[in-house]
Amino acid sequence: MAVKKYQNTKEISYYMCDRTHTLTLPMLVNLILEVSGEQSEELGLGEEVMQEKGYSWIILQYEFEIDRFPKNKETIEIETYATEYNKLFCYRDFVIRDLTGNELIMIHSTFALFDFTKRKMARIPEEIVVPYKATFNKRVKRTPKPVEIDEEKAYSKPFHVRYFDIDTNQHVNNSKYLDWTLNTLGGEFLSNHKLVYANVKFDKEVYEGQVIQSYVSITENKETSLSAHKIRTEGITNCSASFKWENRT
Amino acid sequence: MAVKKYQNTKEISYYMCDRTHTLTLPMLVNLILEVSGEQSEELGLGEEVMQEKGYSWIILQYEFEIDRFPKNKETIEIETYATEYNKLFCYRDFVIRDLTGNELIMIHSTFALFDFTKRKMARIPEEIVVPYKATFNKRVKRTPKPVEIDEEKAYSKPFHVRYFDIDTNQHVNNSKYLDWTLNTLGGEFLSNHKLVYANVKFDKEVYEGQVIQSYVSITENKETSLSAHKIRTEGITNCSASFKWENRT
Repeated sequence: MAVKKYQNTKEISYYMCDRTHTLTLPMLVNLILEVSGEQSEELGLGEEVMQEKGYSWIILQYEFEIDRFPKNKETIEIETYATEYNKLFCYRDFVIRDLTGNELIMIHSTFALFDFTKRKMARIPEEIVVPYKATFNKRVKRTPKPVEIDEEKAYSKPFHVRYFDIDTNQHVNNSKYLDWTLNTLGGEFLSNHKLVYANVKFDKEVYEGQVIQSYVSITENKETSLSAHKIRTEGITNCSASFKWENRT
Repeated sequence: MAVKKYQNTKEISYYMCDRTHTLTLPMLVNLILEVSGEQSEELGLGEEVMQEKGYSWIILQYEFEIDRFPKNKETIEIETYATEYNKLFCYRDFVIRDLTGNELIMIHSTFALFDFTKRKMARIPEEIVVPYKATFNKRVKRTPKPVEIDEEKAYSKPFHVRYFDIDTNQHVNNSKYLDWTLNTLGGEFLSNHKLVYANVKFDKEVYEGQVIQSYVSITENKETSLSAHKIRTEGITNCSASFKWENRT
């Protein structure tokens, strides 16, 4: 049974880009979720249908393998498909290509189903995954964990969770966690390093009005650097991430 | 000589919307500037051409008259045209319509030309405005000023200017000032009021790494409310705004 693939093109606008005229990682996350939403819509399992069933998808983890980020005004193709699922998790890949077919970014993600009347994760019913033609595999995937921060070297910055950080799902938008981690690195680091790999794990959601602390520790090597991140509120870890960077000369 | 109008349609995505599934004012600003950028591009006066000439456009003021904001997944038409210009200022309107032609939002804006080698506002050369077929009128328009804040009633919140607040123009993105003003009002106010008019005046730009204070004073009447705003850094006013709201019952 061949997996059901879905593609759409998106044009990169200036407001999705940073000072280097390049798509930002937080906006990339918005675009891929838009495209997976389109696939669900097409298969009759859009946001409203899921809501009627009492469910919403939550994202537990992302891994990004980055060759290059798209530029301002570039049109990209985003392809997505559910790869496999088990009782509790659903795995979905995204491939970002330029219009000549070159692969720019590969993304692996882990989703779970949230039952919002019971306020907890739900077993995934067949009817919700069958249309995507993903393979059932009872073994839970061992996805690599983000590298732990070095608590001794780590520094942190506070961020207020703002009204507009909450999206149409009534939760803090996924991309905001990436915004907080990256903004903690500051302009000088971000200008001198090129992101090649990212691993982001969502642990516990944050709420409007909270002040999060975004921790980071950086390990600089000759050609590459590694930044390890934690988003914490009152000692609890809400999100862990690690990024691998190539040093720009 | 008929003014040169330009239209394009845009689809509203979930990441442009707030919890009410409605386009946010900051994202509206991003979309209209995208469309005016498209017109400039079409007339051979795009960002890169302007840069070669040593200029960039800066926005001094916006006025928004709002019937309703577009909803998530709605497609809107954005029409824009330069209305008139004088030695120093260029006036541009934007009309937002739904696909049946109903006018949703009318926007009046004031632009000026910035000479970035001299680091100051420039006299507008004919060659830069003629293609837009705007009318020359030597009189400077008297645009209404935002209502002043009531210093005694005002309260404020701090916001850090973040790395990603800087856009492809190497300046803090226009929409961020609106983000700071609106986020200061908080979730309860924003959920209970419907924005019907906004007046935003940009005075002095803010820079990455600065901490801005976003001041607001609110006057509540029976059916409407008024919020007056200032963005300040170290006592200097960077942006003034006032919003008129209908109270939701």
